[in-house]
Amino acid sequence: MTTNLLEPEIISSTPVAAMMALVYRTSGKGTGKAVWESKPRPTIQHPADAIVRITTTTICGTDLHILKGDLPAVTDGRILGHEGIGVVEQVGSGVTEFHVGDKVIISCVTSCTKCDFCRKGMPGHCRTGGWILGYMIDGTQAEHVRIPHADGSLYHFPEGGDEESLVMLSDILCTGFECGVLNGRVKPGDAVAIVGAGPVGLAVLLTAQFYSPAVLCVIDLDDNRLAVAKQLGATHTINSADGRAAQRVMDLTGGAGVDVAIEAVGMPVTFDICQAILTPGGHLANVGVHGVPVTLHLERLWDRNMSLTTRLVDTVTLPLLLKIVEAGRLQPEKLVTHHFPMGEILKAYDTFGNAARESALKVVLTNP
Amino acid sequence: MTTNLLEPEIISSTPVAAMMALVYRTSGKGTGKAVWESKPRPTIQHPADAIVRITTTTICGTDLHILKGDLPAVTDGRILGHEGIGVVEQVGSGVTEFHVGDKVIISCVTSCTKCDFCRKGMPGHCRTGGWILGYMIDGTQAEHVRIPHADGSLYHFPEGGDEESLVMLSDILCTGFECGVLNGRVKPGDAVAIVGAGPVGLAVLLTAQFYSPAVLCVIDLDDNRLAVAKQLGATHTINSADGRAAQRVMDLTGGAGVDVAIEAVGMPVTFDICQAILTPGGHLANVGVHGVPVTLHLERLWDRNMSLTTRLVDTVTLPLLLKIVEAGRLQPEKLVTHHFPMGEILKAYDTFGNAARESALKVVLTNP
Amino acid sequence: MTTNLLEPEIISSTPVAAMMALVYRTSGKGTGKAVWESKPRPTIQHPADAIVRITTTTICGTDLHILKGDLPAVTDGRILGHEGIGVVEQVGSGVTEFHVGDKVIISCVTSCTKCDFCRKGMPGHCRTGGWILGYMIDGTQAEHVRIPHADGSLYHFPEGGDEESLVMLSDILCTGFECGVLNGRVKPGDAVAIVGAGPVGLAVLLTAQFYSPAVLCVIDLDDNRLAVAKQLGATHTINSADGRAAQRVMDLTGGAGVDVAIEAVGMPVTFDICQAILTPGGHLANVGVHGVPVTLHLERLWDRNMSLTTRLVDTVTLPLLLKIVEAGRLQPEKLVTHHFPMGEILKAYDTFGNAARESALKVVLTNP
Amino acid sequence: MTTNLLEPEIISSTPVAAMMALVYRTSGKGTGKAVWESKPRPTIQHPADAIVRITTTTICGTDLHILKGDLPAVTDGRILGHEGIGVVEQVGSGVTEFHVGDKVIISCVTSCTKCDFCRKGMPGHCRTGGWILGYMIDGTQAEHVRIPHADGSLYHFPEGGDEESLVMLSDILCTGFECGVLNGRVKPGDAVAIVGAGPVGLAVLLTAQFYSPAVLCVIDLDDNRLAVAKQLGATHTINSADGRAAQRVMDLTGGAGVDVAIEAVGMPVTFDICQAILTPGGHLANVGVHGVPVTLHLERLWDRNMSLTTRLVDTVTLPLLLKIVEAGRLQPEKLVTHHFPMGEILKAYDTFGNAARESALKVVLTNP
Repeated sequence: MTTNLLEPEIISSTPVAAMMALVYRTSGKGTGKAVWESKPRPTIQHPADAIVRITTTTICGTDLHILKGDLPAVTDGRILGHEGIGVVEQVGSGVTEFHVGDKVIISCVTSCTKCDFCRKGMPGHCRTGGWILGYMIDGTQAEHVRIPHADGSLYHFPEGGDEESLVMLSDILCTGFECGVLNGRVKPGDAVAIVGAGPVGLAVLLTAQFYSPAVLCVIDLDDNRLAVAKQLGATHTINSADGRAAQRVMDLTGGAGVDVAIEAVGMPVTFDICQAILTPGGHLANVGVHGVPVTLHLERLWDRNMSLTTRLVDTVTLPLLLKIVEAGRLQPEKLVTHHFPMGEILKAYDTFGNAARESALKVVLTNP
Repeated sequence: MTTNLLEPEIISSTPVAAMMALVYRTSGKGTGKAVWESKPRPTIQHPADAIVRITTTTICGTDLHILKGDLPAVTDGRILGHEGIGVVEQVGSGVTEFHVGDKVIISCVTSCTKCDFCRKGMPGHCRTGGWILGYMIDGTQAEHVRIPHADGSLYHFPEGGDEESLVMLSDILCTGFECGVLNGRVKPGDAVAIVGAGPVGLAVLLTAQFYSPAVLCVIDLDDNRLAVAKQLGATHTINSADGRAAQRVMDLTGGAGVDVAIEAVGMPVTFDICQAILTPGGHLANVGVHGVPVTLHLERLWDRNMSLTTRLVDTVTLPLLLKIVEAGRLQPEKLVTHHFPMGEILKAYDTFGNAARESALKVVLTNP
Repeated sequence: MTTNLLEPEIISSTPVAAMMALVYRTSGKGTGKAVWESKPRPTIQHPADAIVRITTTTICGTDLHILKGDLPAVTDGRILGHEGIGVVEQVGSGVTEFHVGDKVIISCVTSCTKCDFCRKGMPGHCRTGGWILGYMIDGTQAEHVRIPHADGSLYHFPEGGDEESLVMLSDILCTGFECGVLNGRVKPGDAVAIVGAGPVGLAVLLTAQFYSPAVLCVIDLDDNRLAVAKQLGATHTINSADGRAAQRVMDLTGGAGVDVAIEAVGMPVTFDICQAILTPGGHLANVGVHGVPVTLHLERLWDRNMSLTTRLVDTVTLPLLLKIVEAGRLQPEKLVTHHFPMGEILKAYDTFGNAARESALKVVLTNP
Repeated sequence: MTTNLLEPEIISSTPVAAMMALVYRTSGKGTGKAVWESKPRPTIQHPADAIVRITTTTICGTDLHILKGDLPAVTDGRILGHEGIGVVEQVGSGVTEFHVGDKVIISCVTSCTKCDFCRKGMPGHCRTGGWILGYMIDGTQAEHVRIPHADGSLYHFPEGGDEESLVMLSDILCTGFECGVLNGRVKPGDAVAIVGAGPVGLAVLLTAQFYSPAVLCVIDLDDNRLAVAKQLGATHTINSADGRAAQRVMDLTGGAGVDVAIEAVGMPVTFDICQAILTPGGHLANVGVHGVPVTLHLERLWDRNMSLTTRLVDTVTLPLLLKIVEAGRLQPEKLVTHHFPMGEILKAYDTFGNAARESALKVVLTNP
């Protein structure tokens, strides 16, 4: 009864031109590799589609997972990437909010705006969308991309905006804010611990400050990232290499524990830190992508009035974040450490894939 | 800096009289037994204390756990019981809300009303109270009981009220409502599953109906209890003996899963059912007391926008529940299956301890 | 930048056939009259449009206001009506959720689902929709109607549903529930007063019961409507003819006042009752359409911790109400007192326009 | 059934010593005057009382209202003042949280912590407390003060704290935060307008920044105060002298209006600005004390999805504000413009009473 985005009927017949794109190629034994190759330019396939010429994109940790073979639903030939800024080149007949020439921020989440989940503010679970870009359909690490449900999945780029900064709204800042800060119900005066100082953990750190917590403690194994966290507003940092992170958090909160613990890694050991440091009534907001189950210590937690939340990013807060950037209260570009022209994307992957060695956070690719 | 209730200085010296009480006696190898024996009558020990003559009490599953030795903090000689109705016999000089002769409902939670947790609406975690009756201090399965922080721990019994009905407000209805229904955020039209049809699960069932869910499915192993659930308002019941309960819930919700799953048992197997049946955006409210950890399937749930909550009952909703009982919209006495005079409390323990055999839910003891 | 629904470019050229419709005709001096006349059948004008053949419709108090000339934006020749059930006859190329032959409930609110207000759950303020049916564009009191933004403005009619019952979801039950019950934050155990026992006040009364208030007092001048209120669940009724309604509410709440006062009339005198009866911390939810300002007694209320809310219905709760109807916990047909074939709509207007004389609540028109 | 604080039975007989105090003396025709005179030192009268030696106090706009005769409940001989820092000199037998020698912040709200309102988080409406200091009972502009319900009405002064800064927590910062910011539901990215740049309006301004609004516009008639507002974080200021403030707010929000309008004056004209500038879905939080009714334009607002709130300060956020001050994210001393020794309090009243002439905000009195 709903549109099947994966097997579209072709309703447009623009002559097919070529473009360069970062393509996932299976390498045999379950893993894959990234190839910068020529692909046909995308065309309008549904009335709600738009074609966007990419001017800025970036690489996400999820892209690395795909290359490692962790997401087997990704098929050979898929163009990767779910973040981007660009210019609308073509729109379907049903698109009402965007026109050719509009500069746009692309959400990593495709939203039909009509289904039950979209109407509940959960487009991450959209019946015909959700996270599909660079995963189930071709993505943004290319010169052009087709955006289904364009009216629900694009946002107008503000006049005078900075592309490098605003491409951080495609995914990572929304992820940190929605899954971490909002789900964790961070409030003024709170003690907050963030486990993981990668780009997502740092996005949590930046957006948690909207609510003026009293303590903002960041925990990681990498001293360089902890130093960055300190610059970005952490009141305390803890290197968890010695296995005593939980104890240190209890100490710095006078034995009380934290009001909010945010898991931004996705491993049992980091989840364990979070469940060990909650004050009664505290919130554990999971942001990390987990590959294996965790042990939940309900024998200790059953009476602790805790809440634990999970969430797939919905990017419903993108307009709000945009307002805060425009008001000068958030500088997303602080997450960007490296820049490359889009043609050097393989070099960018190498840098991002060796983040500790390169002191890399987000790498930005431009195609002006 | 705060009062230590466990080693009170004696500030009253009323001559000590005797009374009968149900006393926990250690039997040697880690377990205990219940003895109906003579004990000194309690006396005022702090200005905030009241002495209450018990007229109605009941037995909780937790009392059975104590006898099995599951709560080793309970010491030999402790009077059990944390639920009751009675009449105030004596008050300390600091008690302002109650007077001698007042008929009262005793909360299972002792609340100082002053500490940070009490002020946050979490008296279950009161710094000098919480659940201590029949656990850390002598309880209500006796002819008289000392209630510390009386102003915060007693409630006026309404004129014309029914003791058998209202003693259910001491603990079980508050537990079901607060830990299950409120934490689970049950709302009109929801699909709700309750795992466990013991007294607590049935208390969830009764109070969930305040919010008019569309589906109220109760899951248990005992067909008798499921039949009771049906009478008390369950729209569906499922006997989970065949291990297919989760699948059946998915089937009856058309594959969508439930908005709210409420765990009212406290075992990994019942927790597993709950985590298997949540719709995206759903709430898992844990009510059960767990003795061992559970496996949380974050590898499946990390992107499901779930919330999971735990809570120790606070009884902060007791006045609200009282209003609903008085308005005729809740009949707590439906949870009561057996009655005994207080002197036959050992027989009552036997009945309650063999609930399946006796088709017992709550057993009520009276001492008119 | 957004579609202008009022001056559409014609993109379809279906041959124009005729149909009968209830048309607003200006009668000269500011007022109007209803005429049952032949009009061209509507056609698809935008890709998001659908054409629906009306099988059931009803008349709203707002329609009477239009005829009295209270809404001067309504132009001569406008087809009235914003409630209805029907069958989809034709869909634009951008419609994905509905197909020809689908039976649908028509929302009184047209929602593009894309604009900022729609995404905030406020489609009543939709940038290109909101309440426009039978007001700014032709409505549902006709054999056929064009529904713009069909995917956001139609709902699938459930198999086995009753049209007379479900047409109450087009507007009135959503209005009572959203503007009255949800905005008033009715909760279990509350004392609630509803001022006005017309169809909207009774819709508040029916849906307030989803939350199990302890007191549900309905106030009106018409004893017949108060008798109906009693049948529909009011715990108390008050005829306000003697000007002592506020005092009576205070008396029946023991001087405390109500937790929630819901204004369902739209006049200063009824608003005054509401502001006089609130307990500290209470909520005043305005549902009525007001034509003149009211006096707000902030000199008494500034320290009362009150909230006062207003709202245009959004019908975002229509799916939820549908689930509750299907679960048998709401019988909207209780609001229906009279039935007419659509061809006798002028007689229906006469009945509805003389509601007190005819003991009329909602009148239903069918066109099977 | 509850303690009457106004006619206490004397249960202590400490020998009565003298002290100096600022006393309200009626001057005949409805108004009064402030006299610095000798009064008996207060003594413990209930088990829950404490006697505090005042080291810092301040003057509130309400004190000026009392002197003008606006609060006729204040009787001749009453010691004024409801804000203060001091040291506990004596405690009643029921006081458990404070001891002789403890340094404390005095809340302007006396809270029994036991009554229904206190338990709902509304101690401003406490059955035997609320705002009574310097109003119904003797206050803090004196060398010593009796604090009823001491455990609920005092807060521990943090080690290393600054008295001048923290005396702002007794009333004004809580008032601005609770009645303005929390009731207005200020959230990240919001456009917020504050009407009134007196001490309370500026307290709103300081605490609104906890939530990172994008626009923080302050409106007043006094350019000096607007300049202070700019220093304290206002993004825009508007002098409303020309009667065009509402229009200017609409202009600076691009015609949209503000998400939150906060009334911090208490007059019809300032309330009017607030109701004219709300965006659909916006919140109007009233903080000002009103002496006369206002006109509420429901004929324009009935469909605007607005909320309007009122509140008497509860000071329940005092601990949270204290944490934020300690974390260095709030500098309450920015509200202090003048200092006097307590003996010069009449000079302080003169300065505060001529705030515009003296460029005065809060004046602090010390008695080290």
